[in-house]
Amino acid sequence: MPRNKGFVLASRPTRDEPAGPHNFKLIDIPVGEPDAGQVLVRHSYLSLDPYMRGRMNGGKSYASPQGVGDVMIGGTVGEVVASANARFAKGDLVVGMGGWQLFALSDGRDLRKIEDNSIPVQAWLGALGMPGVTAWMGLHRIVEPKARETVVVSAATGAVGSVAGQLLREAGARAVGVAGGPEKCAYAVAELGYEACVDHRAENFAELLAAAVPKGVDGLFENVGGEPFQQTMRRLNPFARVAVCGLVASGYDGTPTPLPDMRALLDSRAKMEGFIVSDHMSLWPRALGELSALARNGKLRWRESVAEGLESAPAAFFAMLKGGNFGKQLVKLS
Amino acid sequence: MPRNKGFVLASRPTRDEPAGPHNFKLIDIPVGEPDAGQVLVRHSYLSLDPYMRGRMNGGKSYASPQGVGDVMIGGTVGEVVASANARFAKGDLVVGMGGWQLFALSDGRDLRKIEDNSIPVQAWLGALGMPGVTAWMGLHRIVEPKARETVVVSAATGAVGSVAGQLLREAGARAVGVAGGPEKCAYAVAELGYEACVDHRAENFAELLAAAVPKGVDGLFENVGGEPFQQTMRRLNPFARVAVCGLVASGYDGTPTPLPDMRALLDSRAKMEGFIVSDHMSLWPRALGELSALARNGKLRWRESVAEGLESAPAAFFAMLKGGNFGKQLVKLS
Repeated sequence: MPRNKGFVLASRPTRDEPAGPHNFKLIDIPVGEPDAGQVLVRHSYLSLDPYMRGRMNGGKSYASPQGVGDVMIGGTVGEVVASANARFAKGDLVVGMGGWQLFALSDGRDLRKIEDNSIPVQAWLGALGMPGVTAWMGLHRIVEPKARETVVVSAATGAVGSVAGQLLREAGARAVGVAGGPEKCAYAVAELGYEACVDHRAENFAELLAAAVPKGVDGLFENVGGEPFQQTMRRLNPFARVAVCGLVASGYDGTPTPLPDMRALLDSRAKMEGFIVSDHMSLWPRALGELSALARNGKLRWRESVAEGLESAPAAFFAMLKGGNFGKQLVKLS
Repeated sequence: MPRNKGFVLASRPTRDEPAGPHNFKLIDIPVGEPDAGQVLVRHSYLSLDPYMRGRMNGGKSYASPQGVGDVMIGGTVGEVVASANARFAKGDLVVGMGGWQLFALSDGRDLRKIEDNSIPVQAWLGALGMPGVTAWMGLHRIVEPKARETVVVSAATGAVGSVAGQLLREAGARAVGVAGGPEKCAYAVAELGYEACVDHRAENFAELLAAAVPKGVDGLFENVGGEPFQQTMRRLNPFARVAVCGLVASGYDGTPTPLPDMRALLDSRAKMEGFIVSDHMSLWPRALGELSALARNGKLRWRESVAEGLESAPAAFFAMLKGGNFGKQLVKLS
């Protein structure tokens, strides 16, 4: 029997000791045999996503916190290596929520079979997975972009933002990205459908943003928070729509992301809505159908940052939270 | 010919000199004769409303600013005393936007004839006028209250809030008011449909609010801003809806009303939307129809603060902005 290993949450971040790799512990875990109804999956890729940082906290959030001592939550793709479930056979490729470990037992309810072999499996964790569906849902449920409208997307080259830019291009809207550094900005414009991209590290960010949105901002897809978010809110047009998808810049560490003046919302009669992709599972099939059709037609591109081996997951995770990744952050497990 | 008088905006508030009666100037104005298509209206009541404070500023807002030297904008009811417009006859009672003056000439486009004589005319400036329609629209377009949900309304006994409480009662929701002082709070519960009302002047406001919303907050109708607003945002339930109607506590004076942490919006997946009642004129007939039906059935109550005479308007206006009124603030002009 092969050996399983995984990372558990060993402790929660505190005010005095910010989150870091010390909060995780690598342990040996029995691989186990599938009971009736179960399957055993060997993971090939683990997805690292900003929401995981929120789960490390103990406080109230939209999801129950990750239990201390439990294997860290995480999306995975892998291969069924043993099955006692009639829906799955040995050799099936599946996407699921196997967590930060090499193998996982599942009752099958979290697993979806990958039927389309024309697309690299790890894409089902990125552009064709939770991040891609997140982009689709924030745009279609909240921003509702119309042709020629200006829509700003933060973390424009991240797993969510890179899909959002391309969906906006397909909708005929003018996508303006916000990203960290000239290399990411150049990529956003060259490959991801953005008509402009502003570097949030630039000292004159506010000026650069103003120049990039000469007709104001009709929609905002916010993944980050912080000062760039506040500057973008100041440029909202009447009846603008703001999808609040994430606040990775500050929110997860307990640093508040303030909105400095609610008056912007009143003057613009804007709508602002927080959303979580898992609240709307009924929309997933439609979203995945549209995204995979775009991918098959060569109209959806993405980029990956791949860390090698389970042991690299904690460092890769914290680097991603600081914007160190370029595209979808994955860990190759086998 | 009688003499007309009115208040013009003489100067705008500045950072060094906050808004006050000195910004207005009482002048003599010719009464004038109606040209073809015009009517002359003698006003009986002028409505004083928080939005007027915003119009005094020169900066960007949802409306073009009030011109310096022009008669202050304002809703009025009055009687047609001369008509050269086929739609109106001498003696007709009309509601319109005649401004802070005793008489107004109008081409009739802003005038609506009052057909229902069973209701005191000044109600068409309050519960059955712009404030009442504002309450109806914020609730029906944004908050969408369901039976047994908890909805908080600030300025609960004001012209808008007093209607909101009663509409929430009709919808079977649990209305919780926020108002200034025990007298207003007692009135909100006794007369306006609120099941509880919290005094925002109380030192332990946050505790009192928490006790008044034991099941959290499903909807918020915000008229004021400031600390009570921020405390209410902390109690939002998942999928809460927040209608931002006004920010009288701070926003109009240029003091920002911050939202201290956007994370509340993300964690609760709440929707927050600013709105202006004049953006949705097509909904007015339905709103007024429902409100006047409630009034005729004795299911809609209101209270008025009436200042006597045009000269009292500036002082009454600034007292209202500080919560000195109790119910709809009016000025009796004739």
